[in-house]
Amino acid sequence: MKHRIVRRIRRPTAEAVRALAGHGVATIHEAQGRTGLLQPYMRPIFASARVAGTAVTVSCHPGDNLMIHAAIEVCQPGDVLVVAPTSTSTDGMFGELLATSCVAHGIAGLVIDAGVRDIAELTALNFPVWSKAISAQGTVKASAGSVNIDLVCAATLVHPGDVVVGDQDGVVIVRREEALEVARMSAARVAKEEVTRKRLQAGELGVDFYGLRETLRTLGVEYVDEDHDG
Amino acid sequence: MKHRIVRRIRRPTAEAVRALAGHGVATIHEAQGRTGLLQPYMRPIFASARVAGTAVTVSCHPGDNLMIHAAIEVCQPGDVLVVAPTSTSTDGMFGELLATSCVAHGIAGLVIDAGVRDIAELTALNFPVWSKAISAQGTVKASAGSVNIDLVCAATLVHPGDVVVGDQDGVVIVRREEALEVARMSAARVAKEEVTRKRLQAGELGVDFYGLRETLRTLGVEYVDEDHDG
Amino acid sequence: MKHRIVRRIRRPTAEAVRALAGHGVATIHEAQGRTGLLQPYMRPIFASARVAGTAVTVSCHPGDNLMIHAAIEVCQPGDVLVVAPTSTSTDGMFGELLATSCVAHGIAGLVIDAGVRDIAELTALNFPVWSKAISAQGTVKASAGSVNIDLVCAATLVHPGDVVVGDQDGVVIVRREEALEVARMSAARVAKEEVTRKRLQAGELGVDFYGLRETLRTLGVEYVDEDHDG
Amino acid sequence: MKHRIVRRIRRPTAEAVRALAGHGVATIHEAQGRTGLLQPYMRPIFASARVAGTAVTVSCHPGDNLMIHAAIEVCQPGDVLVVAPTSTSTDGMFGELLATSCVAHGIAGLVIDAGVRDIAELTALNFPVWSKAISAQGTVKASAGSVNIDLVCAATLVHPGDVVVGDQDGVVIVRREEALEVARMSAARVAKEEVTRKRLQAGELGVDFYGLRETLRTLGVEYVDEDHDG
Amino acid sequence: MKHRIVRRIRRPTAEAVRALAGHGVATIHEAQGRTGLLQPYMRPIFASARVAGTAVTVSCHPGDNLMIHAAIEVCQPGDVLVVAPTSTSTDGMFGELLATSCVAHGIAGLVIDAGVRDIAELTALNFPVWSKAISAQGTVKASAGSVNIDLVCAATLVHPGDVVVGDQDGVVIVRREEALEVARMSAARVAKEEVTRKRLQAGELGVDFYGLRETLRTLGVEYVDEDHDG
Amino acid sequence: MKHRIVRRIRRPTAEAVRALAGHGVATIHEAQGRTGLLQPYMRPIFASARVAGTAVTVSCHPGDNLMIHAAIEVCQPGDVLVVAPTSTSTDGMFGELLATSCVAHGIAGLVIDAGVRDIAELTALNFPVWSKAISAQGTVKASAGSVNIDLVCAATLVHPGDVVVGDQDGVVIVRREEALEVARMSAARVAKEEVTRKRLQAGELGVDFYGLRETLRTLGVEYVDEDHDG
Repeated sequence: MKHRIVRRIRRPTAEAVRALAGHGVATIHEAQGRTGLLQPYMRPIFASARVAGTAVTVSCHPGDNLMIHAAIEVCQPGDVLVVAPTSTSTDGMFGELLATSCVAHGIAGLVIDAGVRDIAELTALNFPVWSKAISAQGTVKASAGSVNIDLVCAATLVHPGDVVVGDQDGVVIVRREEALEVARMSAARVAKEEVTRKRLQAGELGVDFYGLRETLRTLGVEYVDEDHDG
Repeated sequence: MKHRIVRRIRRPTAEAVRALAGHGVATIHEAQGRTGLLQPYMRPIFASARVAGTAVTVSCHPGDNLMIHAAIEVCQPGDVLVVAPTSTSTDGMFGELLATSCVAHGIAGLVIDAGVRDIAELTALNFPVWSKAISAQGTVKASAGSVNIDLVCAATLVHPGDVVVGDQDGVVIVRREEALEVARMSAARVAKEEVTRKRLQAGELGVDFYGLRETLRTLGVEYVDEDHDG
Repeated sequence: MKHRIVRRIRRPTAEAVRALAGHGVATIHEAQGRTGLLQPYMRPIFASARVAGTAVTVSCHPGDNLMIHAAIEVCQPGDVLVVAPTSTSTDGMFGELLATSCVAHGIAGLVIDAGVRDIAELTALNFPVWSKAISAQGTVKASAGSVNIDLVCAATLVHPGDVVVGDQDGVVIVRREEALEVARMSAARVAKEEVTRKRLQAGELGVDFYGLRETLRTLGVEYVDEDHDG
Repeated sequence: MKHRIVRRIRRPTAEAVRALAGHGVATIHEAQGRTGLLQPYMRPIFASARVAGTAVTVSCHPGDNLMIHAAIEVCQPGDVLVVAPTSTSTDGMFGELLATSCVAHGIAGLVIDAGVRDIAELTALNFPVWSKAISAQGTVKASAGSVNIDLVCAATLVHPGDVVVGDQDGVVIVRREEALEVARMSAARVAKEEVTRKRLQAGELGVDFYGLRETLRTLGVEYVDEDHDG
Repeated sequence: MKHRIVRRIRRPTAEAVRALAGHGVATIHEAQGRTGLLQPYMRPIFASARVAGTAVTVSCHPGDNLMIHAAIEVCQPGDVLVVAPTSTSTDGMFGELLATSCVAHGIAGLVIDAGVRDIAELTALNFPVWSKAISAQGTVKASAGSVNIDLVCAATLVHPGDVVVGDQDGVVIVRREEALEVARMSAARVAKEEVTRKRLQAGELGVDFYGLRETLRTLGVEYVDEDHDG
Repeated sequence: MKHRIVRRIRRPTAEAVRALAGHGVATIHEAQGRTGLLQPYMRPIFASARVAGTAVTVSCHPGDNLMIHAAIEVCQPGDVLVVAPTSTSTDGMFGELLATSCVAHGIAGLVIDAGVRDIAELTALNFPVWSKAISAQGTVKASAGSVNIDLVCAATLVHPGDVVVGDQDGVVIVRREEALEVARMSAARVAKEEVTRKRLQAGELGVDFYGLRETLRTLGVEYVDEDHDG
């Protein structure tokens, strides 16, 4: 229960991260059984934001970004900071100077269940961020927290070393030890969807393609030609 | 009270839809007496989204998109899907594959009081969507619902066959039987606003143009030169 | 306690406004001791929106924009309308015609703790607006209110004549009598940050640059090499 | 599209209202196929609040209670006022004086998608209210609206003359013409639940009683003795 | 812009506070022209909570209650603590030990735009609290703030020395210098309402009593006997 | 990633649960380093609700309570059901019949990040529930989920077998393996607070008792006698 900074974490292989980087958040979320998705209030600060990297987790006091500074030291190139305050906050805990430091250390992006600021500058730096809010509200550097512990960010459990993938649809977390397998299943899903897409493009109906007519019948959904009450 | 899919609905004339398509949501909402507007949490997924078409309504179980598949079959080119779950949900009930199917069948757009996903792909398809949320959260195809019944979407009553107009300001519903008349009143409003705009551009004040000085006097609003307490 | 329209307010010098216009919202908020920021739900309607000007304040009944019309008359070029309803509302109290009138009178922008509409047209006019909501919901012109009184907008106190600065990070209010001093402190802050930025770009860590190692030690934050529980 | 006050509405029989009054909101909602429920943000102002009566509907401008005054005149003993503002509001549109007037005219309760005030007094009067908010915020009597039109209250369609039932679980609307049938189905449901209750009290499991073991098997849910990963 | 604790504030007379204590929040809010009301999310932690006293204001860092401790020293018997964090927070910044200290110093109550905890104990102490949230989340004592400065609490401006009145309907602030006059106007309003109440109890309609028939006519609201469309 | 029901979990000792049952949620949360608290939107359905027991966790599809039925079978007397849907929902997934079954099997209470219904009946049964919402909205029994897996409930990680403590302040989770130690630290905290309480009751100030004068000085908080600007 003490606050601590864990220097070394197990990371996924570069191959696993690269494989996941090729897929969208929705695909990965489906491929791993509809788990790992952060709450939809987590939105990218610019439309082209996209990231796949290794989670370095940061637990902060609300309104205090001391531990983000501490976390940068233990990051490696390609890591993604995943920050959660210990209680709800929209304060702008991260801005252009921290982003500059992240870029200098090769950090690939930020996922933060709080606010960020300097949006114009972060966009110019092309530093991808998913956050709960945009807020210029400043923070202090005064309270203890932890780096690289298991934490809950936007209602999802994140372990240090998990893979974080973010795009316009949101953010999904993949367990480190499942990363390669999830990438494989994502690729399989994409291949299968390619077939589906072609048939739907050709005008085949989903009720036929997915075999849903039987489901509708079993559920007692009735077809009527016109609604005479309407 | 049984779940049903109504195959045939009365549609407005193409002329009525075209006439309404020429006007903005705010204009139409005003022209029909400030009614028919969906709650402002309904936002377009890309800035240039714009639609006018006939409502095909879909009532779904939350987290279940079975009935959207069933609805596509009864759509005609130019229809707009209007989807509402039976209780509050932000799940991503609609994505790129469903959009592909919609495009194949000439469906003009989607209004959904829930979430959507595959935002990058929907934008690339230029398929206009207004939704409550963006979420990659996947859904099942397991529960009964209805197509083409009267339903409440984002706090507004929608009948199958009503006209749906969406733009950056939101979404407005026009009753089928009033569509032509509302289009006519919208055009009249636009013409009148053109006059107003010119006079305001020339520097005439709203308090003069709209005759509000008398209103202010009647309400007892006082003019003071300076505020000596301030 | 009577409703009133104050015709003359003390304005900051053009020099003070110009000086503040050169700085971002986050910088100014920090420079004046982390005060004056409006709630983060206040968002610009387009990404390039940016304003610095003098506050003309407007207190309205919810769903009623009578007093905005009255306020335009007492504005001078460079003023920014700051509008707050007397109770929570998302109605679209401001649209293209009011914006046209604002532009005609040189008004520099709008900050409104309610809704706006005609987003496409306001964007085309390049008229910057920060609002709580986008909504086509129309309003009446029927209820008394006041212009140029002290009011609370988005949880922040605004006096007529205060300087309003808005950008992508939100909106900050600077007291008229402190404007020059805050501009000076903002410039100092920017100069100082330029140094910080260079050292962070060069890879220096925040924990070293800001001297946070001692803080971490004092707070009892422990460094561990690996987490054997994880 | 004109504002109007409809003096005479078709009411359900006293027998139908009485029959529904004997059942809880959850039972009635289930009995009529899980429809008619108002959004769960509608809460009673005191725990013992309970009502069943005929809906007299009121559409108001936000922050304006003129039409509630107008509605009282067209009410009959046993009616329930169902009030919805034309846009979102939490203002206290109803208080002790209006409640006094309601009591004098035999009105049975209030359902309002906005705020109420004078909670202590309303509780002392034992006048049941379901509302979105408690707020002392006063309102004006200045804007047009309608009485006894179809409206959407808390996301549910209400017709004048529908039956309104409220208790601690919320508020449900029953179509006038279906009231007796829904009461009958509610009674059947209660009778059936009595049997279920006895068997569950005796320790029978829901998975057996409802035959869910097969469902679980079909869905592929696996039983494991211990979780060796946990 | 420095953090400070102001030891001496001007207080209203005991007579003014006593006079206001005799009236409800809704009455006072109306009597002073519908101003001074805190946002309706501020709720009492127990139903019988009621307070009238002098505001001692406290501006805190979110998640930090250091300044509440500092404020108690400068309070006098009958004062009410009015606490606002510098950014949004629901943390439980106040609990039983702080309440014990308040009671020891004769402090009459607490109004806090954040969370409180130890609800059972505060209720047993009969210490009235209005808060935004109930949360056990603990806070630190590490960040600077101010006591007895003007601040915005729940969207309303509060000066040290203003009168704070709270009941089941919420919390209202009365300017110190207007306290006696507002009390007088509240009493006048109560007297007038007594007459209104008697006439409404006797069955007189609000539309007649308030002379609203003319308003309805002017607004073009039409009476119809039956709705033949319905 | 398959759905599963884990029949056997490791439970804390009865002694550990009993020891924690003697302490409030706020005390336990503090004693274990301000961790384990569920979001403050989780509220008890009646004021006297209080529980301490072993977590049996349930992961459900939103709007579907199949897995709650499945979970009851694997519960032991004294267990507390901890239910989280896979996406946000307020549906009433639990009511009187399920509570009857829970009581029959000795289940001590329910913590559910969704809605409950039959509030009057649950209160009569004295069955303690903490929920996100009260809603009569019915659910189906159609979708797969899991029992006794690690899950996130109201933003907090819960393992099967953890201790759940709930009271008026909310809900806190204690790791099974830390239960005895946390109980011991809670008791120590209570003993220490007893001393604090006595000194505060005697009028000693928190700034003295906690030694905060030095903190205030270090932070640069200034004492001034009167505020000459105010």
